[in-house]
Amino acid sequence: MKAPPAETLGAFTDNDLSPEDFRRAGHAVVDWIADYYAHPERQRVLPDVLPGQLVDKLPSGAPQQGAAQEEILADFERLVAPHLVHWNHPGFMAYFAAGGSRPGVLAEALSAAVNNVGLLWYSSPALAELEEVTTRWLAVAMGLPVEWFGMIHDSASIATLHAVIAARELAAAKARESGAELDLNRIVMYTSEQAHSSVEKAMSALGRGAEACRKIRCDDRYAMRPGGLERAIARDRSAGLSPIAITATVGTTASTGVDPVPEIADIAAENGLWLHVDAAYAGAAAILPEMRRHFAGCERADSFVINPHKWLFVQMDCSVFYTARPECLRSALSLTPEYLRSSTSRAPQAQRSGQDARAVNYMEHSIALGRRFRALKLWFVLRSFGTEHLSKVLREHVRLARLLADWVAEAPDFELLAPVDFSLVCLRYRPTGASEAETDAANERLLRAVNATGEFFLSHAKLEGRYTIRVAIGNISTTEAHVSRLWELLRSLADR
Amino acid sequence: MKAPPAETLGAFTDNDLSPEDFRRAGHAVVDWIADYYAHPERQRVLPDVLPGQLVDKLPSGAPQQGAAQEEILADFERLVAPHLVHWNHPGFMAYFAAGGSRPGVLAEALSAAVNNVGLLWYSSPALAELEEVTTRWLAVAMGLPVEWFGMIHDSASIATLHAVIAARELAAAKARESGAELDLNRIVMYTSEQAHSSVEKAMSALGRGAEACRKIRCDDRYAMRPGGLERAIARDRSAGLSPIAITATVGTTASTGVDPVPEIADIAAENGLWLHVDAAYAGAAAILPEMRRHFAGCERADSFVINPHKWLFVQMDCSVFYTARPECLRSALSLTPEYLRSSTSRAPQAQRSGQDARAVNYMEHSIALGRRFRALKLWFVLRSFGTEHLSKVLREHVRLARLLADWVAEAPDFELLAPVDFSLVCLRYRPTGASEAETDAANERLLRAVNATGEFFLSHAKLEGRYTIRVAIGNISTTEAHVSRLWELLRSLADR
Repeated sequence: MKAPPAETLGAFTDNDLSPEDFRRAGHAVVDWIADYYAHPERQRVLPDVLPGQLVDKLPSGAPQQGAAQEEILADFERLVAPHLVHWNHPGFMAYFAAGGSRPGVLAEALSAAVNNVGLLWYSSPALAELEEVTTRWLAVAMGLPVEWFGMIHDSASIATLHAVIAARELAAAKARESGAELDLNRIVMYTSEQAHSSVEKAMSALGRGAEACRKIRCDDRYAMRPGGLERAIARDRSAGLSPIAITATVGTTASTGVDPVPEIADIAAENGLWLHVDAAYAGAAAILPEMRRHFAGCERADSFVINPHKWLFVQMDCSVFYTARPECLRSALSLTPEYLRSSTSRAPQAQRSGQDARAVNYMEHSIALGRRFRALKLWFVLRSFGTEHLSKVLREHVRLARLLADWVAEAPDFELLAPVDFSLVCLRYRPTGASEAETDAANERLLRAVNATGEFFLSHAKLEGRYTIRVAIGNISTTEAHVSRLWELLRSLADR
Repeated sequence: MKAPPAETLGAFTDNDLSPEDFRRAGHAVVDWIADYYAHPERQRVLPDVLPGQLVDKLPSGAPQQGAAQEEILADFERLVAPHLVHWNHPGFMAYFAAGGSRPGVLAEALSAAVNNVGLLWYSSPALAELEEVTTRWLAVAMGLPVEWFGMIHDSASIATLHAVIAARELAAAKARESGAELDLNRIVMYTSEQAHSSVEKAMSALGRGAEACRKIRCDDRYAMRPGGLERAIARDRSAGLSPIAITATVGTTASTGVDPVPEIADIAAENGLWLHVDAAYAGAAAILPEMRRHFAGCERADSFVINPHKWLFVQMDCSVFYTARPECLRSALSLTPEYLRSSTSRAPQAQRSGQDARAVNYMEHSIALGRRFRALKLWFVLRSFGTEHLSKVLREHVRLARLLADWVAEAPDFELLAPVDFSLVCLRYRPTGASEAETDAANERLLRAVNATGEFFLSHAKLEGRYTIRVAIGNISTTEAHVSRLWELLRSLADR
């Protein structure tokens, strides 16, 4: 029951790695990463492994005895690394790039070391305020309204779910005002047939199923037709359904199509619907003045999502969600249990200073109570490169996409299948005289042949039923040499 | 249009930090962390800062020009670090500890470096299979059914939302079988009045509001009363409502109460309800044979959540969710868009090998499409310590909690307010002759006085209306010396 002398307080036991062992192991990990970065060409982008092979290499239970960090790092390299897909590889052009830059790694190491958890402001002022600052920096850089409330989620899917929850809350409040109750069985929302599957998933999460997410037909640029949207809303209204929201996309997943947000915002306003804009991939381009035209009308959105973990060189996971109406989220999701109470917005220091109102409690705006210190990597990346360098890299990616598009357009046996507005090129091989089915099959073979080289990883989509090869440029290290080599491979493998 | 010679492929430009600059900056970050670990006593657990002070120190927009890593690290130390709460500090005893251990930092650095994103097996076999292996290791260590499907979410709140979605899906399927439709406006679920707020939040997310989560009264050990649960279900059924699920808690947030899971499992089975077990904090204790009794009946759950980022020394975020019925999640949430199709479960290699069925596609079981490589840190921590060392640390935390509880029980002017089954002690100062209101006020003052020392961070709860000081032991570096010093402080500050 006697207290120890004060100087021994905080002295560590041997329960964890000692600081010096951590230092040695940490340097080894940093060296491993630096070597990995120095020689990406030693790796196949896509590993040649089969499902279950890693499982079979590992024991069926956790070890009883601990191992040295050197052994674990060696096992990581020997057992785990051969099963990685090299998302950082300059030849990774599948899906959309999730190309983390190197400063982001340092930020994630620091974030893991201090391991702050954001529940409310009081549980980590650094986390809460850096999230506030970095999301505002990004809004300013993208030309979005600076007064928007910004927060960081793990994925655009979760951000979109929050948008739909806020939209439903607003609809329920409006129904109550007019003396009615919102019928949860009759909620519907709208997006385009080219929208990301997460919009449908949000409706599935709410219990209405994917069908309650109406997929409006697109025009020949894969952009939502506003006329179809208006008609669908009117049809649903007269069938007694309750429209709550529209999700417009700037930069669709399959082809980076851009929905006509100004017209859609008009329709949302006329119908009293929440407008959510999904710019998860393309949003980064808004930092380029010459690309701002694609974002016209976005300032009228109720919510907006952009993933810096896609095309802004921040490590997964960093999905920035903005809303003009945070009160709808709070109304739907704020619950402050007693064990978090006094320390919530009434932090003792804040009380005595009267600065209470400046404490942002993110837990009141999200399903998750606790959050990682994700803002640190966004801060590191924005600080490391500055907006000028980031703009330079994005501009170069757009240039490379257009360069490839020009080559494709000039080649007699290839064709473009969608406009190239950002850094994605949708193309296909078009053998003379082949039927649509034969062409699809030839492109499927071509995609596999390219991926089998290990030099590149491409994925595909279907556009108007046609098998489409997607070349998604977005890694910070991708250069003209890579795009040129890919084009050579595509042509030479198509001929076989 | 000419391809570069193969040996230049993958050569990096100067867009990112060079590998050598990364190495230098990485070593500096590792050194910063090692020094931080070596001298926790130099930090106050809880910073003495006001809301808005960090915001005010930082510019209002992102920099145009990039900065050197040395400068950013220096700014982190000078500007950001003073606003951290030191969750790793051995005196952090608020909420529940989220005490990441040092090997977890190394894993997070590697995870950020390779930046793999789990969409489907094909997008990172390493991520998918290590998640499968580590969640199974944990199930084995905890004595849970090894055939359960395991996956890692960011938070128990999101895991619980998935449980409720799966429960609703099952209820909807049963309704359809009997020719009816589940009415989303009439869904209800059950938990105890001591359950975590995330259970109510899940019902809020589903649009039913917190009231649709019935909070069953507890007994004097803060455990749910099964009789009350049965009556509530019967009452709701006869009112035409649709019960879908029960969440039982093993280790409640306020006092680590343990609901009677065997009885609750019987009630769930009789009523055809989904049983979810929230063992977010206490679950770790299941690796100790002597603590298994608290988990009796958990093997009958439909789903179960345990957060290794709480009491298993893994960095935030690592919340492991198990379910015996993954098909309900798939049925609710599986949507495979074309751009992910052929590569989904039909990875080309898998097709040719017939090993298709072994590819786990986590995106089919979750709202989020993409996921971080979280399994790597769970693997590092389990490998680094082994189950024996982890057991030793947990056992010591339980011993320390009982030691403090004994001191409290012996002290005439202090009392325990809840059983001490794990590593949390609920106590209060009880001045002679003071009223309940005076006692509450004295304890609120005492909590503030302890926190103001900077040596410890405690939080509070209310138990039967009484202000309760919570001492949550769970950091890997907390020793008897810390607990002893805290007890001295509590007594000396209470007397003032």
